[in-house]
This record gives sequence, C-alpha cells and structure tokens, in this order.
Amino acid sequence: MRRQGHHYGLHRVLEPKGVLPQPAWKLDATPEVWTNELLIEVERLNIDSASFQQLKEEAEGDPERIKRRISEIVAARGKMHNPVTGSGGMLIGTVAEVGSDFPDQTLKRGMKIASLVSLTLTPLRLEEIDGIALKTGQVGVAGKAVLFASAPYAVLPQDMPETVALAALDVCGAPAQTARSVQATDTVVIMGAGGKAGLLSLYQAWKKAGQQGCVIALESNPEACREIERLGLAHHVICLDATDPVRVLEAVAEHTRGGLADLTINCVNVPHTELPAILATREGGVVVFFSMAVRFTTAALGAEGVGKDVRMLIGNGYVPGHAALALESLRECPSLYDWFCRRFS
Amino acid sequence: MRRQGHHYGLHRVLEPKGVLPQPAWKLDATPEVWTNELLIEVERLNIDSASFQQLKEEAEGDPERIKRRISEIVAARGKMHNPVTGSGGMLIGTVAEVGSDFPDQTLKRGMKIASLVSLTLTPLRLEEIDGIALKTGQVGVAGKAVLFASAPYAVLPQDMPETVALAALDVCGAPAQTARSVQATDTVVIMGAGGKAGLLSLYQAWKKAGQQGCVIALESNPEACREIERLGLAHHVICLDATDPVRVLEAVAEHTRGGLADLTINCVNVPHTELPAILATREGGVVVFFSMAVRFTTAALGAEGVGKDVRMLIGNGYVPGHAALALESLRECPSLYDWFCRRFS
Repeated sequence: MRRQGHHYGLHRVLEPKGVLPQPAWKLDATPEVWTNELLIEVERLNIDSASFQQLKEEAEGDPERIKRRISEIVAARGKMHNPVTGSGGMLIGTVAEVGSDFPDQTLKRGMKIASLVSLTLTPLRLEEIDGIALKTGQVGVAGKAVLFASAPYAVLPQDMPETVALAALDVCGAPAQTARSVQATDTVVIMGAGGKAGLLSLYQAWKKAGQQGCVIALESNPEACREIERLGLAHHVICLDATDPVRVLEAVAEHTRGGLADLTINCVNVPHTELPAILATREGGVVVFFSMAVRFTTAALGAEGVGKDVRMLIGNGYVPGHAALALESLRECPSLYDWFCRRFS
Repeated sequence: MRRQGHHYGLHRVLEPKGVLPQPAWKLDATPEVWTNELLIEVERLNIDSASFQQLKEEAEGDPERIKRRISEIVAARGKMHNPVTGSGGMLIGTVAEVGSDFPDQTLKRGMKIASLVSLTLTPLRLEEIDGIALKTGQVGVAGKAVLFASAPYAVLPQDMPETVALAALDVCGAPAQTARSVQATDTVVIMGAGGKAGLLSLYQAWKKAGQQGCVIALESNPEACREIERLGLAHHVICLDATDPVRVLEAVAEHTRGGLADLTINCVNVPHTELPAILATREGGVVVFFSMAVRFTTAALGAEGVGKDVRMLIGNGYVPGHAALALESLRECPSLYDWFCRRFS
C-alpha cells in the first residue's frame, strides 16, 4: 500500500467506483497510509448535531443502542457518514503516521490535531466506543482515521482549552477571508457581529481598518451589542434586526454619511439577510456571505432587482492559514479570548 | 406628486409600510411619476413561467379566466406579483414620461424598452388585456407601469428581432461579468457553454483571452458541442456531463497540462455542478456561478471539503452596461447572431 494516493482520495473509494469520497457509499478505511496520507489515532468524534439528533431518536435515547448504530455505520461505510441525514462531523486525535509525500512534513507523531474536513469523507475504522455525551454529540473512541493530501486540519494548541480552540476553529474561514479582503481605509460592516464568527471577523476588520478606516458592527441582541462595545473592536455598534433591509440601509447610510460599506461580511445565522447585506454595500463594493442560511437565488435576484453592482462572494470555509489565524487572534486579543473562555470552556 | 421618490421605490409601498416593493403586498400604481421615476406605456407582459403555469392550472386552461385572474391580481396588489408562486416576469412598452431627476435623461418619449427588473416590484395599472399566448406566457395589454430610479431596463434595438434581443437581455449579466473578470492570458472554462448564457459568455471570454489565453467550453449535449465548434469561439470543446466532478477535473487537467482554470464561469442549469466547477479551478482562481440551480451550502462546504482556496462569486444579474454589451456581442459576431435568430425569432 505504499504508493501515492489521489489528491482527493479517489483511491479509497470502494462503492460506487469513480465518485469522490464524500458522495461515495463506502470507503476503504484500511489503517495503512498511502505515501501522501496522514494516519490519525482517533480519540473523539464530534458528531454533527443533525446526525446525532437522528441517532438519538432512532435509539430512543439509549446510549448503548447509539454506540451500536455508530459501529454499524462505520463498519458498513468506512466513514461516520449518517445515511439518514447525510451529515458527518469532525474528529480529534493524535498523529500516528505521516506519509512521506504528505504535504506538511512538520507534523510529528503524537501531535494532537483536529480534522477540519467532514467525517462524511474521512476513512475511519473504530476499535472501541467508550463514552457518549448525549448533550453534545461527543463520542470517545479508539480507532484510526486517514486524512488525504487535500484535507484541511489544525494542530491543537497547548496554551488554551481544547474546547475554546475548537470553537474558534469551527468558524475560522470567516476571519481569514475578512483579513485578506479588508484594506486599511475601508468602511467595513460586520453583520451578526456578536457571534463567534462575527467577533473573530470583527477583530480582523478592526486590526486592518481600525486606524484609517471605519468598522461597523451590526447585531440584533442587545446584550451581545454591549459585549461588542466592551471589547472595543468597532467604531459603531448598531443594535438592529439584520433581516430588515430598510432599517439596515438607513442605519448604515447614517453612520457612513451615505457612503455605505466598501465591504460587508455577513455572519448572521438566520434567513433573509441577503438583501440587507446588498443594500448596506456601496456600488462596486463586496459582500461576503458566511451564513449557511443564505440562499443563492435570493442573493442573485436581490442584487439584480435593486440594480446594484456588488461583488457577492460565497464564503469559502477554507482559506490557507485560516486555523492559525483564528488561534492567533485569541492570543493577540485577551478580551476576545476571555469571551471565548466564558462561553466554551 | 412631483416630488423625488425613494431610490428603491419605498414611496410606492402601501402595505405593509416600511418594507421594500418586492416583499410588499400592495404598491401604489398611480400612473403619475415622481421626479426620479420613469412612466411606461405597457404593451406586453412576459409572465414568468412558474407563475403562468400556475395561472393556467387554476383557470383550467381557459384564457378568459386567466385574463380575469391577472386583472384581479394587478388590481389588488398594484403589480403582477403572483401570490401563489411569488414570481413575476418582465414587461415591454414605450417610454411615456421621463421624470426630471430620473438617472438616464437620454431616454425619450416613444422609445421602446424592456424592464430588466421583476414584475414583482414594478407598479402596474392595467386598462385592458388583449391576447394571451398560452404557450409562452406573453400577454398583450394596455396599461401603465412605473420604473424606480434603481431599476435596470434596456432600450430595445431596431436592428434585430425583438424576440432575439429579449433572449439575449434575459441572460446579459453572465457575459458582462465574464467580460470584466477575464484577463488576456487567462485559462477560462465555461461550463454549460452551449446555452444562450454560455455562448454569450464564451464569446466574451474568447474576445478577451482568445489570443494569449486559453478558452475551454464544457457542454453535455453533443449537438451543442458541434455548434460551439462551428462558431469557433473556444480552443477546446469538451463534451461531458458537468455534474461529474471526477470527469470534469480530469478533462480540464488534461487540456491545461494540470494547470486548471484561472476562471470558471458556470452557466449549467442543472443541480450538482458546484464541486465540478471548484475542482476545475486552480488554487487562488475564481468561480462565477450563474446557474439558478446552484446551492449556496453545497458550494461553501464543497470547497472546504476539498481544501481548495477558490473565490466563489454569486453571479449578479446586474452589471453596469450589461444590456448594451449583450446586444453588441450579437452585432459583433454574425455566427452568434445567426444562432440566436435560429432559436428565438
């Protein structure tokens, strides 16, 4: 088995042949690495919440039955890919072996890492299932998983609680995209600024445009607005409902003397915030959508309907260096780190 | 009524107050312009196909009952906004009055124009409904409509059949976005190159990158592939199913010696082409999605899952100058014009 595998893991697909690992029914989870793979000694699965909810219901809340069902799925499919919900989750473990052609040769045996790629495409073999936390969907296991050359992952830091690091890593695409999109003199609007993706993005916007530019935080929750003000990462904190296009337009126009935003980062996790984001942005400006509640057609037709020339980006969860940037943000900004610790440790 | 109205038409919203014209239940369609509006003598409504299908079914195919229902909707809502489907369509008519503050003062009374904004947000009053074409959803009418300062529209050209011009205008955002995204030395992949949006985009890609770059057309229909070859607008025409990520990746890699596309324009109107478009594009490249079948989450999670750093744009139907560019393309390229005439006149 010591050949070089396919960059996207096609060599591990058993059924049906020729598809990518994610849509495949069954993967080859043999715990021996091809030369460009990484082998992980798995400690914990974080089952995605939709999947875990379904497993709980099917098992009528019985932990033993949930364990049995997880074993069955992984044995049948070579991955923890819930056949009902179609969803996965992610895993935590230690590096067991680094293939000689794996892109990152700085990884060493024993380092603790989190996969930043879905369990639905991660070859997995389980030896044992220990505890199940019914509230969080965290499953303690012993087993082996394989990461392909293309799969993002993060080395877990030793200077902060694992749960804090994981919370930041979960949304690390948004701040990384913000960091590389903001220019020093930009007016930046962060919608949904009070959540973890919003705050990390706000920090990057403030870092890049806090001196010469203007950073505006929109947030609907009054308590979260007070938190943002305490953190001191915005020139203006506006408390309003981000689904109301007219109020968003008026508020942003007022705080920018009609100039509107050069860049709007939408981190709001409720539907119907496409048009407000478009209206908050100037002609020729950029909107980055990081909310999974965004509908493609609503955004495309919304901009067309108001005749607005904005560049609308689908927030890519992967940006090179995204994991390191998110963790570094927590180290750089103690008040932000405190916020994460209060919520996630 | 001779004041300046709101840029996005808020001054015409009757119920509920404070929302934008599109989500509003009822608009004020009084056919007197505010100073930044345009009044149109309407000749024809092109009812959107989902809406017209619903009207036909509700009326059991009886043209008189369809007419009555259209009259009722427009009378009740002040716009042809089908309350069941939520969709509209567009209209054609002649300029009746140009408000003194309307952005384009080159428009003259009597010029024939098409609205490029949905009927769901266009104030409309009908005096008469003449013929209904049951096949196409075209409805001959007499009436008045209002365009807001923000609404895109196009002056219909006199040198080509109206149906040909409308077919091109219907998709004019895609070629305009292509034109401004392509650099001279780019490798450009157009997916779904054989449809009208695809061909117009292909023409712009060829115009910008045909000399120093490389233009690749992907199309699943063999007859459409032969058409593209006859038009001579691509270096390579690849006949394959755009929903197959592995085949798309392999084909594009083969024709670019592994370099992949700098820019991929996706005009495929079937689902499941997000990941193929992402895989066809190089690290750091750009994908523009112009298909209404694209799912936001599939694109966002797809790129993350394969760890690919591509910029993914939601194709905006509005780009300044888009209508003129599409019509000019037909004038510049006689073989493309022939293609449109064969299909749409």
